[in-house]
Amino acid sequence: MTVAGSESHWRLAMSFTEFDLIERYFAVEKVSRSDVILGIGDDGAVLKVPQGKELVVAIDTLVSGIHFTDDSDPASIGYKAMAVNLSDMAAMGAEPAWATLSLTLPEVDHDWLTAFRRGFFELANRFNVQLVGGDTCHGPLAVTIQLHGFVNTGEFLRRDTARPGDRVYVTGVLGDAGLAMSIKKGRYAVPQNGYEYLIQRLDRPLPRVKEGLSLNGVAHAAIDISDGLMSDLGHILAASQAGATLYVDRIPVSPVFNSYREQMDNNAWIDMAVSAGDDYELCFTVDPRQQDMLSERFSATQYTCIGTINSSPGLHCVFENGDEFIPASIGYDHFKDQ
Amino acid sequence: MTVAGSESHWRLAMSFTEFDLIERYFAVEKVSRSDVILGIGDDGAVLKVPQGKELVVAIDTLVSGIHFTDDSDPASIGYKAMAVNLSDMAAMGAEPAWATLSLTLPEVDHDWLTAFRRGFFELANRFNVQLVGGDTCHGPLAVTIQLHGFVNTGEFLRRDTARPGDRVYVTGVLGDAGLAMSIKKGRYAVPQNGYEYLIQRLDRPLPRVKEGLSLNGVAHAAIDISDGLMSDLGHILAASQAGATLYVDRIPVSPVFNSYREQMDNNAWIDMAVSAGDDYELCFTVDPRQQDMLSERFSATQYTCIGTINSSPGLHCVFENGDEFIPASIGYDHFKDQ
Repeated sequence: MTVAGSESHWRLAMSFTEFDLIERYFAVEKVSRSDVILGIGDDGAVLKVPQGKELVVAIDTLVSGIHFTDDSDPASIGYKAMAVNLSDMAAMGAEPAWATLSLTLPEVDHDWLTAFRRGFFELANRFNVQLVGGDTCHGPLAVTIQLHGFVNTGEFLRRDTARPGDRVYVTGVLGDAGLAMSIKKGRYAVPQNGYEYLIQRLDRPLPRVKEGLSLNGVAHAAIDISDGLMSDLGHILAASQAGATLYVDRIPVSPVFNSYREQMDNNAWIDMAVSAGDDYELCFTVDPRQQDMLSERFSATQYTCIGTINSSPGLHCVFENGDEFIPASIGYDHFKDQ
Repeated sequence: MTVAGSESHWRLAMSFTEFDLIERYFAVEKVSRSDVILGIGDDGAVLKVPQGKELVVAIDTLVSGIHFTDDSDPASIGYKAMAVNLSDMAAMGAEPAWATLSLTLPEVDHDWLTAFRRGFFELANRFNVQLVGGDTCHGPLAVTIQLHGFVNTGEFLRRDTARPGDRVYVTGVLGDAGLAMSIKKGRYAVPQNGYEYLIQRLDRPLPRVKEGLSLNGVAHAAIDISDGLMSDLGHILAASQAGATLYVDRIPVSPVFNSYREQMDNNAWIDMAVSAGDDYELCFTVDPRQQDMLSERFSATQYTCIGTINSSPGLHCVFENGDEFIPASIGYDHFKDQ
């Protein structure tokens, strides 16, 4: 599946083709699925979608200088590249199955590749995902993963089906990844306790695959929170041609995050929690009559009702006491564009 | 399907998320397939593989500075990125159906995107391929496409099934793309006639999708020629644990290519034809008893028998008179590694 051309204009990526990097580094892992008819090593992979299932695909690229830096821990890059794609599967209510990987590398560095592979397969193995093909080439560091998963025919989560009256929920807690980044950048003091926790939340988010599967048949609309709650809920509202009221003091945060609130200006903690992104929690809407089914399915999952869907457009952020909250963040700008 | 994080380490790709480039530029094209349940605009696409079919996937990245330059014609980049992936479908004997596109852009340039889209959809529309999803981010120019196609259950072309006694064939002619590149680089004079033809062969190869489909049930092994005949036939031999005799003076070349032979040293034309790559023809092996079926299926396709598969390993290049030919090219080095 590699491509190469003549030198210069379409220059030969020969040294990389020769290394057969995908085969050497990535064809050796544990997961071996019976629905993979032909895996790594040919011009394409041949795959069997089970009867009664539809295929869900999502592709994402992480680029050095944007999503990480050249000296970022390669295991975290491998882990996170897989995590963001698994999070898309979660947001579709899909069961992940197969991955393809396109890796652009400035050089062939055995230690880097070994660590990247470790991070990549940590999540792939956990979610029974088999790497079925890929491509390597020479260039500025970038990682593209496409994931393929299954849903039962017609049973998947989408963005454009939120309905007025729905309650808006999020899984887990928000803002930890944004706080970790701010601490890394020196904006806040390194905590005596909990820094390890925050860094894990930034570098090693656990995608909500199980929860996404549980939401099929319960949630009206769903999305994963990658760009920040404001922005991603905004996508649901734009696609559903609806609005929402968001109760900002209901936004769930972690105890570690909470311990930082006194260091922050006024309501800066809210902006961080609703806009910083990189949380990879799920945001979803549920008809209030389905609340019992939700609590049954989510008996082991933290989830919080943070608002309601309205028929009139716009995202209204309020405190429980009725005061309006005006977000300072670019997440809001993004939403204003709709 | 976009990802973004906090600034710096996982910096926000917000400006690009905001532009919703994939939706704005790529969700407007003609092909609308009934097997696409949910296309562009959600966290993933939902797709229906027809009953009795298996799914074939292939992913490829083209990077600026390696496969093209920043000032390359964007329509040619879009065309070629699609062509190299369609060529992988051809090599699998698969019928292309769906594409995903991940585009990394240094800036949002309307003219560039419009031209890129034109090249991309020229081939997508021709082969009835629907773009079902994608991702854009900010960074050094790179294009990743994944194609998805169908084969009848168990009916596909692979690399590892060449058998001793098989004849080795190629479609079309070889070496035009390599010659076009050499002329661009000033190694040979620009021809009075035929330059347009050569540039088309370099920038706008027509993937052999129809021919790949015709080879199901006829060819034992197949691959597309992207790295050069020596290298790609080498992949077939390595995977099939076989060798081959290649009759170098049977290598088919175009009349324009032929007119350059007198400008080249001795047998340099052979090296160019067997090693320069970027031809995107198919190389395949066929049991001699299947020759009639092949000629029936390929009644409208140029194809040439260029050698035979041997049980003993190694690729022996000979002239029809029995003299040995020693390739000068790196294609050969690659093969030696097996």
